Amino acid sequence: MKPLGPIPQGFEAIDGELAIGGRPASHWVEQAGRTPLFVYSQDLIARRFAALREAMPDRLKINYAIKANSFAPLLKFVSNLADGLDIASGGELEMVRASGFDLARVSFAGPGKREEEIEAAIAAGVTLNLESETEAERAFAIGERLGIRPRLAVRVNPDFELKGSGMKMGGGAKPFGVDAERVPTLIRRIVEAGAEFRGLHIFTGSQALSAEAVIDMQAKVLDCADRLAREAAVVLPKLNMGGGFGIPYFPGDAPLDIAAVGTALEDRFSDLPGTLADAELFIELGRYLVGEAGVYLTRIVDRKVSYGETYLVTDGGLHHQLAASGNFGTVVRRNYPVAIASRFDAEGEEEVNVVGCLCTPLDRLADKALLPHAEVGDLVAVFCAGAYGASASPSAFLGQGPAAEMLV
Amino acid sequence: MKPLGPIPQGFEAIDGELAIGGRPASHWVEQAGRTPLFVYSQDLIARRFAALREAMPDRLKINYAIKANSFAPLLKFVSNLADGLDIASGGELEMVRASGFDLARVSFAGPGKREEEIEAAIAAGVTLNLESETEAERAFAIGERLGIRPRLAVRVNPDFELKGSGMKMGGGAKPFGVDAERVPTLIRRIVEAGAEFRGLHIFTGSQALSAEAVIDMQAKVLDCADRLAREAAVVLPKLNMGGGFGIPYFPGDAPLDIAAVGTALEDRFSDLPGTLADAELFIELGRYLVGEAGVYLTRIVDRKVSYGETYLVTDGGLHHQLAASGNFGTVVRRNYPVAIASRFDAEGEEEVNVVGCLCTPLDRLADKALLPHAEVGDLVAVFCAGAYGASASPSAFLGQGPAAEMLV
Repeated sequence: MKPLGPIPQGFEAIDGELAIGGRPASHWVEQAGRTPLFVYSQDLIARRFAALREAMPDRLKINYAIKANSFAPLLKFVSNLADGLDIASGGELEMVRASGFDLARVSFAGPGKREEEIEAAIAAGVTLNLESETEAERAFAIGERLGIRPRLAVRVNPDFELKGSGMKMGGGAKPFGVDAERVPTLIRRIVEAGAEFRGLHIFTGSQALSAEAVIDMQAKVLDCADRLAREAAVVLPKLNMGGGFGIPYFPGDAPLDIAAVGTALEDRFSDLPGTLADAELFIELGRYLVGEAGVYLTRIVDRKVSYGETYLVTDGGLHHQLAASGNFGTVVRRNYPVAIASRFDAEGEEEVNVVGCLCTPLDRLADKALLPHAEVGDLVAVFCAGAYGASASPSAFLGQGPAAEMLV
Repeated sequence: MKPLGPIPQGFEAIDGELAIGGRPASHWVEQAGRTPLFVYSQDLIARRFAALREAMPDRLKINYAIKANSFAPLLKFVSNLADGLDIASGGELEMVRASGFDLARVSFAGPGKREEEIEAAIAAGVTLNLESETEAERAFAIGERLGIRPRLAVRVNPDFELKGSGMKMGGGAKPFGVDAERVPTLIRRIVEAGAEFRGLHIFTGSQALSAEAVIDMQAKVLDCADRLAREAAVVLPKLNMGGGFGIPYFPGDAPLDIAAVGTALEDRFSDLPGTLADAELFIELGRYLVGEAGVYLTRIVDRKVSYGETYLVTDGGLHHQLAASGNFGTVVRRNYPVAIASRFDAEGEEEVNVVGCLCTPLDRLADKALLPHAEVGDLVAVFCAGAYGASASPSAFLGQGPAAEMLV
């Protein structure tokens, strides 16, 4: 038997069935007309924002990194709650444009921006988080050609990392940003070139569950930003302090203590150095805002036994849930939170393997899990499906195509 | 320094540049109008088929598993060389239908076939490789409803595996097929139900490079098929012996010795038991037929140094090359064969990291590789990109979208 990850708060049963947004899962499947289906709850996203605003200093602004989930209705909903949006490609710029969001509150990070992406961003008034000196020169040239003063921030590759994070993005050689020691020179070059200097972006890692690690990281980010600004002899109009707030996916994971993070940040904010005194201070979150608000629903199409093991074969799989299958950035596969949606209040009574419909042994949704008895036709729910699900999975694999998506 | 995988045979330089199908890489990029670009060589696919036909017994038929690459022009080209096609979803059925291929020479395997997929297959005269007794009953009922006699083979979960294979798909509890011990009963049930019994499908693993392992597996498949047919008191009209032929991806990998496999198979075919005497005998290959014929071309958009390490940042990445990035079914990341296409005949002279354009440390195409000096604008080639590249990668990730594809 292998344990399942913890089911996020906010999900209850109606008539024995998993409810999302106050209606049973089967209701949404009926509305969508098919499975597999991602259902995202507005209510859970709004509650997450409210809790975060409550815990964090008033001064802190919250950006949404749309890479986590750019499903158009969700993007529209979240952008009404967020102070700004962070994008990672020209494609994401077009999504944000289509949503009607104020492009002056958008920033664009990404180590391999193409010429035409930089041009589109500058023309739209989006802030570029520069990843290298070469990119800076390219932005100056494009700005000159367009007759537009580019808005440029510097993405810093800091000399520290976010401890215990799922993905380390600072501390040592990295393809992201400019090594801290070269940042003051680049800031001066931006100012001299006549571009609008928009401050710094310091992103050190993601998916951390330890408040202590996040507090330590944020303190270092503030110190680093101050040091770099002093060396460059500028004050910072803006500082994107990065993200790193994780959500529990796996057995034993506990939620991040945001109250502790907020208290420590309040303390730091009460005594900011001159370089940061008037800065707009941001954190940039994706997964933390929307990850737990999404559920992936897939229907059991076969129930079979092989050499004594029971398999529930679903019509979904890794083509929509690459990370849940254990094939994206993980070395050892562990179970996400998974449940039989149609028997949500029933006790676990048998050990089963939940698999997808693909012809590959990689396509697993739950290994040796204790679940209520389920039959063909029952719905399986995979939780924590609101971020890096639909968009981070190979939906064309084996000719399957994308899942349906709904914001409810 | 980390070694690179071996560049497949058949690629040479023209004027110092990598040539594909007799023209330099930059020619195809110009034709496509953009990077990243997958280029698939007809000539290399045809040569692979010819070599395989030469090595294998005349009697052996060769099926193409379209999941490896279903790009329409390539599918059309390969289907003229193959004896049959294997599909894994209703989506793939539609691709094959669109290609004009004779649907009577198509078989459909997949553990989670939906009702409507089974119906479409039966209506089209496609052979279903049944994955369970439940699926068999569903097929009988649909056949009756449609007034069509379904063509049904049984996918066997054998009690042995393909040794040294990249993915084990037999030997022990599996979601695929029917455990061997229950197969004779199912065969009798198919015959009694009045369906057309189309034999067996025994698939034990993929991506094996050891001829000895493949020979051993094929011998066991033939023995297993004979035993099951005898127990069911039928002769087999058809046997799909599975695939398993691997291609070299990584440093130290050597090509499969198909001459040895063919000789051993010839020997077995000369002395087949009565149950197999009149059977159509197939192997089912995907990756082996098209994998080495494809090259992924991506342009360097930045060259940067971080803490002494050099990064070549490209406009491609894991959104098109998930397996090459090391994030699909691999525990330890190793380098695929990668080259600077625009300097294909130059000697390696510096250690670099080739990365994609995505904002994630997972997006790596080559780690600490010895390559010729390359600058912004140069093309990088990732080899072995003909199978499980475009279709098995999360192309929507970070709003990037699919790469271009060309058959040349």
